[in-house]
Amino acid sequence: MIILGIDPGLATVGYGIIEKTSKGIKMVDYGTITTPPTEDTPVRLAQIADGVTKLIAQYKPDAVVVEELFFNTNITTGIKVAEARGVILYRAALECGSLFEYTPLQVKSALTGNGRADKKQIQFMVRATLGLTEIPKPDDAADALAIAICHANTSEYGQRRA
Amino acid sequence: MIILGIDPGLATVGYGIIEKTSKGIKMVDYGTITTPPTEDTPVRLAQIADGVTKLIAQYKPDAVVVEELFFNTNITTGIKVAEARGVILYRAALECGSLFEYTPLQVKSALTGNGRADKKQIQFMVRATLGLTEIPKPDDAADALAIAICHANTSEYGQRRA
Repeated sequence: MIILGIDPGLATVGYGIIEKTSKGIKMVDYGTITTPPTEDTPVRLAQIADGVTKLIAQYKPDAVVVEELFFNTNITTGIKVAEARGVILYRAALECGSLFEYTPLQVKSALTGNGRADKKQIQFMVRATLGLTEIPKPDDAADALAIAICHANTSEYGQRRA
Repeated sequence: MIILGIDPGLATVGYGIIEKTSKGIKMVDYGTITTPPTEDTPVRLAQIADGVTKLIAQYKPDAVVVEELFFNTNITTGIKVAEARGVILYRAALECGSLFEYTPLQVKSALTGNGRADKKQIQFMVRATLGLTEIPKPDDAADALAIAICHANTSEYGQRRA
């Protein structure tokens, strides 16, 4: 099973693709979709939509997994991330048809057994689970791989959205 | 010039279509796109995207105008509205190619000359400007007409987004 994890954002969307087989989980690819702050929001949203569409066309994931938003910081940034996230959910459901969401707490619990694990613990487990020699960079890509791994290690039927 | 004003939301998207001619502004149509709370978010986002696409196909607006978000209330509701707004901006820019945004302050100022005008004053001016016998219902549709009127009465070059 191919899983595409997405960490939403307007400037940087992290993505991570993993394959789950009977032998375990392996990394397929990871990276970011970036949009220039000099462009207007609708142009950047279209770039994100196109990027997500291309990833799904290229890797044909069996499931797309997106992290739910949780805000405790900047509300203005939060609105921009939510606008991007809306477009990601819309395109992913349309292109893949199998969409799941997990909260940050669920991702942390699935990877470390601790819902309050910090970023370093998560990145350590991403590297260890995928058998990589280094932690994937940037953080957005590592976060996206963490979301994909969370789905691989969790029942498929919990948070299905499309 | 045909102007489509949109008041973003996840449960209810208000829309208002007006025509600006050398003789003034007239109302063409108004209403809402509604999505059932029983459906998952990506399904509702797709319904909104389809609704916006149909409105643009039907009325062929020269400009789509969307209100910018301003939050001082519920953050959870705010995230949902922002996700819907992202999809609206994305589809509108793609389908119409001419997209504008105004802040609530700009809409209030353009309609009443007072950036702190309340909802009743705005609705009074929507009714008066369009020569209607009654205030359009629901509020989301009246708000959408207000945004469209704001654009009709404002320079086109201020907040162009696409």
